[in-house]
Amino acid sequence: MEYACRIQHLKGSAIREMLKMTTDREIISFGGGLPDARLFPTQTLAVLAGRVVREHGQTALQYAPTEGLLPLREKVAAFLRAKGIEVGADHILITQGSQQGIDLLSKLFLDPGTRLLTEDPSYLGALQAFRFFEADLLSVPVNGEGMVLTDLVEVLKKGPRLVYLMPNFQNPTGIQYSLESRKAVAEVLLDQGVVLVEDDPYGELIYDGLPQPSLWSFYPGPCKVHLGTFSKTIVPGLRVAYLVSDPELIQRLALIKQSSDLHTNSLGQWIVNAFLEEGLLPGHIERIQQCYRRKRDIMAAAIRAHFPPFAHYETPKGGMFFWVRIPASLEAMQLLEACLNKGVAFVLGNDFFIQQPRHHHYLRLNFTSAAEDKIEKGIAVIGEEMGRLAPHPEEIPAFR
Amino acid sequence: MEYACRIQHLKGSAIREMLKMTTDREIISFGGGLPDARLFPTQTLAVLAGRVVREHGQTALQYAPTEGLLPLREKVAAFLRAKGIEVGADHILITQGSQQGIDLLSKLFLDPGTRLLTEDPSYLGALQAFRFFEADLLSVPVNGEGMVLTDLVEVLKKGPRLVYLMPNFQNPTGIQYSLESRKAVAEVLLDQGVVLVEDDPYGELIYDGLPQPSLWSFYPGPCKVHLGTFSKTIVPGLRVAYLVSDPELIQRLALIKQSSDLHTNSLGQWIVNAFLEEGLLPGHIERIQQCYRRKRDIMAAAIRAHFPPFAHYETPKGGMFFWVRIPASLEAMQLLEACLNKGVAFVLGNDFFIQQPRHHHYLRLNFTSAAEDKIEKGIAVIGEEMGRLAPHPEEIPAFR
Repeated sequence: MEYACRIQHLKGSAIREMLKMTTDREIISFGGGLPDARLFPTQTLAVLAGRVVREHGQTALQYAPTEGLLPLREKVAAFLRAKGIEVGADHILITQGSQQGIDLLSKLFLDPGTRLLTEDPSYLGALQAFRFFEADLLSVPVNGEGMVLTDLVEVLKKGPRLVYLMPNFQNPTGIQYSLESRKAVAEVLLDQGVVLVEDDPYGELIYDGLPQPSLWSFYPGPCKVHLGTFSKTIVPGLRVAYLVSDPELIQRLALIKQSSDLHTNSLGQWIVNAFLEEGLLPGHIERIQQCYRRKRDIMAAAIRAHFPPFAHYETPKGGMFFWVRIPASLEAMQLLEACLNKGVAFVLGNDFFIQQPRHHHYLRLNFTSAAEDKIEKGIAVIGEEMGRLAPHPEEIPAFR
Repeated sequence: MEYACRIQHLKGSAIREMLKMTTDREIISFGGGLPDARLFPTQTLAVLAGRVVREHGQTALQYAPTEGLLPLREKVAAFLRAKGIEVGADHILITQGSQQGIDLLSKLFLDPGTRLLTEDPSYLGALQAFRFFEADLLSVPVNGEGMVLTDLVEVLKKGPRLVYLMPNFQNPTGIQYSLESRKAVAEVLLDQGVVLVEDDPYGELIYDGLPQPSLWSFYPGPCKVHLGTFSKTIVPGLRVAYLVSDPELIQRLALIKQSSDLHTNSLGQWIVNAFLEEGLLPGHIERIQQCYRRKRDIMAAAIRAHFPPFAHYETPKGGMFFWVRIPASLEAMQLLEACLNKGVAFVLGNDFFIQQPRHHHYLRLNFTSAAEDKIEKGIAVIGEEMGRLAPHPEEIPAFR
């Protein structure tokens, strides 16, 4: 069989392979990016699911408009306006998860060789889609404040068509862009003729400090896209997310979505719509924040207690991940193999990087999924293996 | 903003535009391809939805494997084996509607200019996806038996990579390939190095005669794909369908799906799985067949009573559509405008054709969606407008 050229760029996600493996046996997993299923409002959703099907089945189970359920689009717009993103329902396209938003944007904007700028490291699922559509990936490193501005200015000279970034608790580094950094990035991008894509799956998962305004609000003109999702704030399995942009762009993306899957599953949209209508989201987000803050603190304490001092990390103020650097004398892969033997999993940082040489000395640790009592146990195992495998680590330079 | 080259091939579906319009006001619509929502097993699905979420919420609402829910894949495989398609769970990829199956196949196989052979006319949604991925569309006309074999042999010399066809109650013509035609097509395709894609959304919607075996069963080797869906037999709004192929191809398509939307909505999969587990599908399909057979008969009788003798059609033995040819002196668009003014909608046949010159003298009439008492009323309006607009039609040559 002959395949399309783009298939040469097809690569599985190490994370999803890991996910499969970890469901196979009893393991403490800090891999993946799963929300805590214990927090799912299952009883409420069971009632809403039953009610929606009983009362609106003939509509909620029928073919539906590609753009999404209008009352849901209106509620999403209202939710965004409360965060300073001034939009109406016609700015909203309901997508089958944010991953579909990324797929649709790739279809709309990417020819083979189209330049696209991302943070380095960046979200694996986005990189996978961009590479599949044969983008020429440019990248800018991030520091504790956001993208390194001087590098951004330099790389922009190469003329990317899109800039993809994640200003809130970036995956995988956990970084939250400062207000100054947001303003500076928006200013630098302005008049560059780029489309700004702001991916924000973790904005509501904030545990310390204040939420920062969306980059959208600093960026004038129609060339911008905001991606949001209910996967982290309600449940992922309904696959209900949203893409926000100029109404004209939304119409174009809706046409592309039409040929991709006709429309997002209607039942999921109706259930999310009912959940929002009942006013349940704010209280539920608070419960999630409390739980994840506690888990983050447990992991931070365990890392302090069990990791050798050479392990470098910053405690994230939100999101789902610790991002840990280990000395160059210790390969993350070697550490992972040792930990898997002891029943503990995490994700290698390597795959998240765009630029060569590859970075074999990073781990991403998810703190939202494992049970509280497993977190310290798992971290202790990783720390022990670190010490065993790298008893005399070299000095490590400052975090970049 | 600069777009990808493929965007020049982006065209909305006339049918979905029509769909939007027809939900706007009170109209008798024979447009679209909607199943009858009155047949949806809403009470059952409400119970199953509630139960699945209550009992399996932590799994059914969580991220899930890209390939689909394993028990559902097993049940689909068993369902297919009962139809003579010898497959196991690893041959099955659960997709977000069959439209996604078509999108994934396009991503896997189509470069700009890749040759793909379809029936002429063919399903609009597939044409839309193939054109979006810049396929070079070859086509072969259909007659009452299936593809015209001599034309098929000729066009195959151009070396298409894929052959896409719909042997059961083809959309839009309603044709069911005869057994001989199936065997002959399979034989002609053999050793051509093509991938055979058999799209079968209507196989269960059979009202007269016997079901014919799947082309899959005549076609040896791994280069074949079968598409099936629960959209017509349970409900479309859950967006649960399946793609069947060689396990190696399924793995490749799963990787592509992973970067497209991670996975199909889990709740829909769990609900369909429960519906199958309860053994409800066969009885429900029978109810659908009874209802649609009656509606088809009502429409056939109304056409006989109200259409002028120049309107040519065959009563379909299954599926959802009558395919009607009108004289060359009467433009279908002109007829549609006149009918819309009287509150009746249908779909122009023109868009379904691949080859120029365009065919402006066909209508597709859906008989599954409108209420029984509206069918005769709507057909009477169309017949009246036909007679008014073409009082002296020329002779029409035999159906091709």
